Amino acid sequence: MAIVETSLREIDEAAEKAYTAFLTYRQASPSQKVKFLNLIAELLERERARLISIANRETFLPPERLDGEYTRTINQLRFFSDLVKEGTWVRAIINKGDPTRKPLPKPDLRQIQYPLGPVAVFGASNFPFAYSVCGGDTAAALAAGCPVVYKANPGHPETSVEVTKIVVEAARQAGLPDGTFSMVQGASHETGARLVTHPRIKAVGFTGSLKGGRAIFDACATREEPIPVYAEMGSTNPVFILPEILEQKGEEIARLLATSNTASAGQFCTNPGIMVANEKSSAKFYDEFAKVIRDTPSAPMLTNSIFNSFEKSMHEVMEKKKVQVAAVASDEKSNNARAHMFVSSAENFLGDDDLWEEMFGPSSIQVTAKNSDEMMRIAEALPGQLTATVWGTENDLKSNIPLIRLLELKAGRLIINGVPTGVEVAPAMNHGGPYPATTDSKFTSVGTQSIYRFTRPVCYQNFPEYLLPDELKG
Amino acid sequence: MAIVETSLREIDEAAEKAYTAFLTYRQASPSQKVKFLNLIAELLERERARLISIANRETFLPPERLDGEYTRTINQLRFFSDLVKEGTWVRAIINKGDPTRKPLPKPDLRQIQYPLGPVAVFGASNFPFAYSVCGGDTAAALAAGCPVVYKANPGHPETSVEVTKIVVEAARQAGLPDGTFSMVQGASHETGARLVTHPRIKAVGFTGSLKGGRAIFDACATREEPIPVYAEMGSTNPVFILPEILEQKGEEIARLLATSNTASAGQFCTNPGIMVANEKSSAKFYDEFAKVIRDTPSAPMLTNSIFNSFEKSMHEVMEKKKVQVAAVASDEKSNNARAHMFVSSAENFLGDDDLWEEMFGPSSIQVTAKNSDEMMRIAEALPGQLTATVWGTENDLKSNIPLIRLLELKAGRLIINGVPTGVEVAPAMNHGGPYPATTDSKFTSVGTQSIYRFTRPVCYQNFPEYLLPDELKG
Repeated sequence: MAIVETSLREIDEAAEKAYTAFLTYRQASPSQKVKFLNLIAELLERERARLISIANRETFLPPERLDGEYTRTINQLRFFSDLVKEGTWVRAIINKGDPTRKPLPKPDLRQIQYPLGPVAVFGASNFPFAYSVCGGDTAAALAAGCPVVYKANPGHPETSVEVTKIVVEAARQAGLPDGTFSMVQGASHETGARLVTHPRIKAVGFTGSLKGGRAIFDACATREEPIPVYAEMGSTNPVFILPEILEQKGEEIARLLATSNTASAGQFCTNPGIMVANEKSSAKFYDEFAKVIRDTPSAPMLTNSIFNSFEKSMHEVMEKKKVQVAAVASDEKSNNARAHMFVSSAENFLGDDDLWEEMFGPSSIQVTAKNSDEMMRIAEALPGQLTATVWGTENDLKSNIPLIRLLELKAGRLIINGVPTGVEVAPAMNHGGPYPATTDSKFTSVGTQSIYRFTRPVCYQNFPEYLLPDELKG
Repeated sequence: MAIVETSLREIDEAAEKAYTAFLTYRQASPSQKVKFLNLIAELLERERARLISIANRETFLPPERLDGEYTRTINQLRFFSDLVKEGTWVRAIINKGDPTRKPLPKPDLRQIQYPLGPVAVFGASNFPFAYSVCGGDTAAALAAGCPVVYKANPGHPETSVEVTKIVVEAARQAGLPDGTFSMVQGASHETGARLVTHPRIKAVGFTGSLKGGRAIFDACATREEPIPVYAEMGSTNPVFILPEILEQKGEEIARLLATSNTASAGQFCTNPGIMVANEKSSAKFYDEFAKVIRDTPSAPMLTNSIFNSFEKSMHEVMEKKKVQVAAVASDEKSNNARAHMFVSSAENFLGDDDLWEEMFGPSSIQVTAKNSDEMMRIAEALPGQLTATVWGTENDLKSNIPLIRLLELKAGRLIINGVPTGVEVAPAMNHGGPYPATTDSKFTSVGTQSIYRFTRPVCYQNFPEYLLPDELKG
């Protein structure tokens, strides 16, 4: 499907309409929002087979993978619907006044989280449902009371158009104003730039590359009124494998990590791209990892441009004399990504910061560390991450507490003896982390807490009951 | 006292030391942080008379005013100490795992708020204690587990040096590492710029002018790793006075608002600078307001540069043909600010956006509105504010709900029948608001919630009990 380019005037209109809708939608009752979110979920459910087939054609993601993602998308909508229904997410704080206090009366103060205003959402190429039209960002913004102007990802235009129809229809059925949700399209940088710099837009949710996220961040920081940008830009998700567990379970860990590394052609934000193993006892781990890589079927990537970037970074790493190619998938098909495994010593890895950057796709750099000290130096050198993982026996872990404490400074989520892929949608989840993993480490883009990206506190002082929001009465 | 210029190398050293201190201080137990905060409070209490005398000499703020502020400063430290002791501020979220869940086991996820890292704090000229060395920003950062590098306000250098000695001594007595708190000085823009662009600094708290706050925001947004800037830059704090209450209590309201407007030579962030009254029945209100203004003693301002800005803006407004001077304080003393009251029609006010800007000092623009519609247009035109106030009888308020709902979009705190000055330190307080009142409307700089400016979530997945932070065990 060709991408329709939304004109600049239409983008402005979408932003203005979203503001007009906001004047009503910000005051929508919890039950109206619940109805809207559940309607989207219901209408989505009816179109499951048709939409998965469209997305499969556009993204090459396999139907089973898309089916799981589709379910997750529906669950996320219901998750936010339940959050709104339950109600305490508004963080109501009531400090009753005391007119008799000396020397000054104590005012009655009541605080609530209030929607920020219209939100621009940029969909992800790798999640055509769960982080696109009505994915996590949109669900969180709508739950908060913010209309959404959605910028379609050029990687799956027809999917975007078809899901948009569903959301617009759900808004209509829920009796919500025109502009509560709308979609703009355009392959050029200008479309997104126009949208995020429109004065009516008050926040941005984005999932994509560092380059794209940073460009939007910069555009928003230089607005007359700067606005928050929540850009989730991925990371290398380092994994540290300590000596005793490597000795005991090297092959099993290799299979788990290699599977995590190559799933969906390595196109997950939390894909483990850098693994640091203790040199001693690493042979079986590397052998097994290489075996899985060689046996991994090659697969088409989401878009041509993503595939070209992957190929380019593979060539660049191969040309480096200090990095060895340990394995390449044997399955060769034109325009399909083949899994790669590279190996480097800690010293060479530390000497070349190109190697610290994400290579989006099914590849990894295996770094051999002589000892705990080299592991610490690698952890110290790496930039901000979504996740960091440590594998260890109880002995390993207890001897490497400084490493774990150092990783707290580097990542938004720390995992012991697991794989970073598979982001659970739960209140305690944090899908975020220090720059360049995201532009705002204070917020998650998955889970309940992600709603607070789109709210701000408002305090009501000495308000009579009849003027207070319902949540602050009494 | 002459300002010692901290060299650029010393600024870098302070930032590095703060980072080294952070590696220890981030893991300080609640009781260590409680001890530190309480020690600062105790040592401050002992030096009350001496420090107030120094601040009075440097800022011209009267001793009674400084005494109240001094008490508030001590109370803020104890307030954060109590918050840390109580412990739930860390927002622990525990989602226990379920290894039997199908198709995939549910991971154990536990989230906590974690300190961001070293924080740069810029002190306010108008609060030499409560928003300076160990004021609200510093207390919140230290409570969160972040070391502070304090940039002294050039308006009260000796006060800053003396209070710094107290904080450094308290850190020593509490057994905390060197660098947990340090101070840098310098009148030039370069001092602050060097500090906030140092890679070890992870957040900034600032109270001051729009120009200064925006410059810091811009410097931090263009860092390789952008960091959050919480700049509280003041506002005009509009007050809307509805017809029936104006008729019934015009004179009383005039006295309250004029006192609020001229207190401390008008040098409060929440000073009401724009008042909009219904034209009908406004005569008594204006007469009484003018009387208070004429009788207001003139007073020295905090610094020469603040006084010069105030004089300049008074001259600029006086030259405007469409604004009338309604009253000027009769007390004339060289280099002292005289209170001013201007009057403008709604139409003229709406036609001149110069008038919408803050004029820091004892002055106000009284806007006469013909009807509710003109009030709405003024509310719509005004930029973001810390506060917005409405005076009205029950009849007035019930007939002007759209105005109140519109003001929710414009301000961080809404007040009914009160004055905006006097910011209560309480959990429900919000001292913040949409730009240009602040650079980040999502956070307050007063009250419990202000601690979250200096934290980010960290999620621990499948951690064994012995590796979890205490708050996440069990």
